[in-house]
Amino acid sequence: MILTVTPNPALDGTWHVDGLAAGESHRVATGAQRAGGKGVNVARVLAAAGDEVLALMTAGGASGHALGDDLRAAGIAHRLVPVAAPTRRSIAVVDDTTGEATLLNERGAALSPEEAAAFRDEACSLATRAAAVVVSGSLPPGLAAGDVAAIVAAPVASGIVTIADVTGAALWAAAEAGAHVLKPNAAELRETTGTDDVMAGAQALLQCGAGLVVVSLGAEGMLLVRRTHPSRGLRARLPCVLQGNPTGAGDAAVAALAHLLAARGTAEDLGDEELAQLARTAVGWSASAVLMPLAGDLSSERDALTAAVIFDTDSRNQT
Amino acid sequence: MILTVTPNPALDGTWHVDGLAAGESHRVATGAQRAGGKGVNVARVLAAAGDEVLALMTAGGASGHALGDDLRAAGIAHRLVPVAAPTRRSIAVVDDTTGEATLLNERGAALSPEEAAAFRDEACSLATRAAAVVVSGSLPPGLAAGDVAAIVAAPVASGIVTIADVTGAALWAAAEAGAHVLKPNAAELRETTGTDDVMAGAQALLQCGAGLVVVSLGAEGMLLVRRTHPSRGLRARLPCVLQGNPTGAGDAAVAALAHLLAARGTAEDLGDEELAQLARTAVGWSASAVLMPLAGDLSSERDALTAAVIFDTDSRNQT
Repeated sequence: MILTVTPNPALDGTWHVDGLAAGESHRVATGAQRAGGKGVNVARVLAAAGDEVLALMTAGGASGHALGDDLRAAGIAHRLVPVAAPTRRSIAVVDDTTGEATLLNERGAALSPEEAAAFRDEACSLATRAAAVVVSGSLPPGLAAGDVAAIVAAPVASGIVTIADVTGAALWAAAEAGAHVLKPNAAELRETTGTDDVMAGAQALLQCGAGLVVVSLGAEGMLLVRRTHPSRGLRARLPCVLQGNPTGAGDAAVAALAHLLAARGTAEDLGDEELAQLARTAVGWSASAVLMPLAGDLSSERDALTAAVIFDTDSRNQT
Repeated sequence: MILTVTPNPALDGTWHVDGLAAGESHRVATGAQRAGGKGVNVARVLAAAGDEVLALMTAGGASGHALGDDLRAAGIAHRLVPVAAPTRRSIAVVDDTTGEATLLNERGAALSPEEAAAFRDEACSLATRAAAVVVSGSLPPGLAAGDVAAIVAAPVASGIVTIADVTGAALWAAAEAGAHVLKPNAAELRETTGTDDVMAGAQALLQCGAGLVVVSLGAEGMLLVRRTHPSRGLRARLPCVLQGNPTGAGDAAVAALAHLLAARGTAEDLGDEELAQLARTAVGWSASAVLMPLAGDLSSERDALTAAVIFDTDSRNQT
């Protein structure tokens, strides 16, 4: 079982209008509501790929009920830690005449100290029974980088593959806790490490304790760097640029990494060919998410895109 | 107990943004969700005025759960007829920099024949135990004007005060079923009767079987016409124009009518002074709703506004 840990899930609602006019009233069809948040997207991709998943998240209020309803309807096994505040919502209003989406993202309420402890303890407990653990997304107020460190440290101590897609202090904490894989995007890496140099930023996280850093670079693909070979980065990308919806592309990459490493049983001692396979699959799945309107879905072009991935070895920043 | 019947309730959500930009992403505070629909607004006003109310409506899905949660939190006694489709939602995005509200109103799903029958039968059954019955708002697909006629006819047969704020075929059906009071606004009256002449439109509904027609005219106040004196309308209005939110103003007027007529015990044989008191209270409560940001709330100026109401007798259309 692959455990996905989503500290700050959301209930994502989408409504379609023909021409959005500010200050006006619009009659619309019933909106779609879907469980969201980065870890939920990862779980959705893994479930579609045939992996056994367990999606852990908090849930509160009517929106928390709806979150659980959607996970049940989607057939995604889940564990919901009850919290008092309603699960935050996002509202997407898609103007069908322009294709433009206007988004409202609720910040979400704070967890109480007891709720934060219950969530962290549940994650640590479930993690030690998993084949791989993924911690993804932002933290709600009340959950600290130290909690992420604890959630990462528990499976790492048992040799269980552990992947973190977090940012800022939580990214440093995950690195220090020895996460096997970190997956920041270029902006998150820059903001966290303070350097514009992607290789240098990845190396800082490796020196801190991470095993592999995978930096997603948007249309430029990904850069992968191992602690065992910190001066040698592998760049993987598609030979063409895709048009589509980048939301959830990074989550599909994380799902690909979890899928392969859970099957391998360990993230240690990755050889060059294994690294290339990770890179190829992460880029291919990520690209096939771009082609889909909703985060957490992959297009049927997945395998063709994966086969099309090309590589460059990046050794500009040898140290 | 005053029974409010709301065939097509909604869960109203409101979010505030500082500058709404189409196509952009906005971080927002948690939105407020509130039970809505015209009959719910009437129940809210009556409960605040100290009347014992029972709010009947359908409820389905997660939004139906949230509807019930809000009614409970507001202390409004309610009876929810379960339906399969989720309760429709409305979404208001208020731009705090301009005060402008952009609205999305879901059309809502159809009731099944069984659900429509269950709702109609529950309304008829509860109506015969009420001191007054109010039927308010639009009909969902699957509920017909004939169902409104049945819901009106049941209390009318027992001499129970019955008020309908409906439109189109349902307005004709309520008149034919002998509703004691009908409360269309000028646009609804025009669309239903096909005449621009407010007195003529009101008279058509009286001839069809209604006891009293109260036409709300926005800033111009209201016109009241009785079946017993069809050629003599009473116009009531404020001596000044109020700025504010007209949503829910008509519902406050309906609540005022139900409040007074339930206490009187019958809507028959209204004398001139009683008619004037109905008019004064309906206009005053309606105006005090305009001063409040949310439908279903009245301002503390209610009694002062009611005292300020002035009258004109309208006998232009004597027949």
